[in-house]
Amino acid sequence: MSNYQNLTLTEIAARIRGGVDTLVIFHRHPDGDAVGSGFALKLLLEMMGCRVLCSCDDELPERLAFLACDQQPSIKAENIPADFSPAQIITVDTASSAQVGEQYGRYAGRINLMIDHHARGEMYADGWIDGDASSAGELIYRLSRELLRTGRIPSIPTEVDRLLYAAISSDTGCFRYSNAGPDAHKAAAQLLEANFDAADINHRLFGVKSHKLLLAEKLGFERLHLFADGKVAIVDMPMSVKRQYGLTDEHLETLVDVARGLQGVQVAAAIRQPSDDGVYRVSMRSSCAVDVSAICASFGGGGHVKAAGCTIVCDEGIEAVVEMVAKVLIAAL
Amino acid sequence: MSNYQNLTLTEIAARIRGGVDTLVIFHRHPDGDAVGSGFALKLLLEMMGCRVLCSCDDELPERLAFLACDQQPSIKAENIPADFSPAQIITVDTASSAQVGEQYGRYAGRINLMIDHHARGEMYADGWIDGDASSAGELIYRLSRELLRTGRIPSIPTEVDRLLYAAISSDTGCFRYSNAGPDAHKAAAQLLEANFDAADINHRLFGVKSHKLLLAEKLGFERLHLFADGKVAIVDMPMSVKRQYGLTDEHLETLVDVARGLQGVQVAAAIRQPSDDGVYRVSMRSSCAVDVSAICASFGGGGHVKAAGCTIVCDEGIEAVVEMVAKVLIAAL
Repeated sequence: MSNYQNLTLTEIAARIRGGVDTLVIFHRHPDGDAVGSGFALKLLLEMMGCRVLCSCDDELPERLAFLACDQQPSIKAENIPADFSPAQIITVDTASSAQVGEQYGRYAGRINLMIDHHARGEMYADGWIDGDASSAGELIYRLSRELLRTGRIPSIPTEVDRLLYAAISSDTGCFRYSNAGPDAHKAAAQLLEANFDAADINHRLFGVKSHKLLLAEKLGFERLHLFADGKVAIVDMPMSVKRQYGLTDEHLETLVDVARGLQGVQVAAAIRQPSDDGVYRVSMRSSCAVDVSAICASFGGGGHVKAAGCTIVCDEGIEAVVEMVAKVLIAAL
Repeated sequence: MSNYQNLTLTEIAARIRGGVDTLVIFHRHPDGDAVGSGFALKLLLEMMGCRVLCSCDDELPERLAFLACDQQPSIKAENIPADFSPAQIITVDTASSAQVGEQYGRYAGRINLMIDHHARGEMYADGWIDGDASSAGELIYRLSRELLRTGRIPSIPTEVDRLLYAAISSDTGCFRYSNAGPDAHKAAAQLLEANFDAADINHRLFGVKSHKLLLAEKLGFERLHLFADGKVAIVDMPMSVKRQYGLTDEHLETLVDVARGLQGVQVAAAIRQPSDDGVYRVSMRSSCAVDVSAICASFGGGGHVKAAGCTIVCDEGIEAVVEMVAKVLIAAL
């Protein structure tokens, strides 16, 4: 049992201090929700007289640079100036100390607040955890309106609304997933009253792919294996092909969507080889009643009912892994 | 100047009659907005004691069949029973008599109302035209609440909300485009209070592609021509390749997105050859300040600032058309 308290919106807003040096931390491998909500909180705190830096174990990915807009030269924890000694530390969208990452070692015990929407996270500070919220962006949206209501900020700049819209859109897959419920849409409706180009944000988040990513999808399409009259689709990506085309694992994160998106497919899997040994990373997706988290659990993995993953060790090559995964998926139908 | 009246929501709701045989017409080549809002209106009218059929020049596409849910065996105008003689005809999402299609000949002068969201449509009946609405679905959503408010229907079935959500999602590209403003999100928030699987709808509308469509995108990726340091991307699809892979024009509607979606691309075009003669269909997209409707207008075409099209006639082969289009796009940057 954690000694930390889960606070309400009113309580957390009251706890946030103005006028002090503040560090806003978000999770490593930052996504649009982390960056958007982190930088929106930074701007809100600056309006309250804080000097604020955002900090992350990893550098800002280039495709998300448009969300930070030169607010600071680097977010990477090791580049935070040594003389910046925060009196207040708030984490956003960061469900566990492991997600805080290496910098947790530096700040453990000094984190004042955590604001997060992951239901099964670890409490490593007093926090506001709402597992029903779509995104950290939705929480910072509510916080921003509470700060306005209580007169702690005089107004909400368009830039804050732009970042929060981007955060919510990012974590809901542009309002496509089941977490885009009434509250996410209500927040978007209110945020869109400000004047920014939402279509451009969505294009940057969801419409743009690197040449390598498009190449990976093309190769994935060519490597589709279909079973059970096309209800099961598996795409594999062996190390030899990755090497031939200069692909790394970051280009293969959406590979499973190639299989899942083919008409008629009910269960999909992507199998990739992170290195030359016999270890394979498997991602599974379900578009029907099949629970892929149960299937992945049988291989020592886990996840959600419709999206899960596991690691399979096999010395007989990737073809054998494809066959093994096909067998359990066909049986599960 | 048209003799037809543009009515308000209150007026159009008052004009709609209950208890009579009614035909709901939507535009040919029906999309998710047409089908979703058309069938939602059908269900609402049935609650008002009407016998209702939906009618369209074209049959329901298989990928949208989940929206009609066996409500009627066929929507194709020629399959509407000859003894069905509607006393009330309402069109939805149908901007012009040409969009009504061939069946306009049968019903001209007998159309009671048109409900549409296209700002520059043609008035071919009294109607409710709101060019600021995201979709016909958003209009039927407002109509459904007006019918409820005035006691003409006792409640709104979940199925109506499901269809209207699908219609709005369909026409906004899953809330991705600039027409997904505050009103579209407010409508979605309200509709999502009903209990249906919105993520499944969005997956069916946007996550599923036929094998031929995926094949077309793969071939498109292989046929990308880049200019101006990758700021201009053109993909071409000659008749010879279409024939080789059994592709028809319906598989090529998203071809331009392959070019537009590549990182760094600011202006994109897709050039396809509908038949063996020297006629080429060109689609253009802009992700920057370039106005592609002006460029397409210079070729006798038109469209929107960021999405437009034109037809080019050229006897020197598709390579010459690629060069011609590249030249004007580079010049426009």
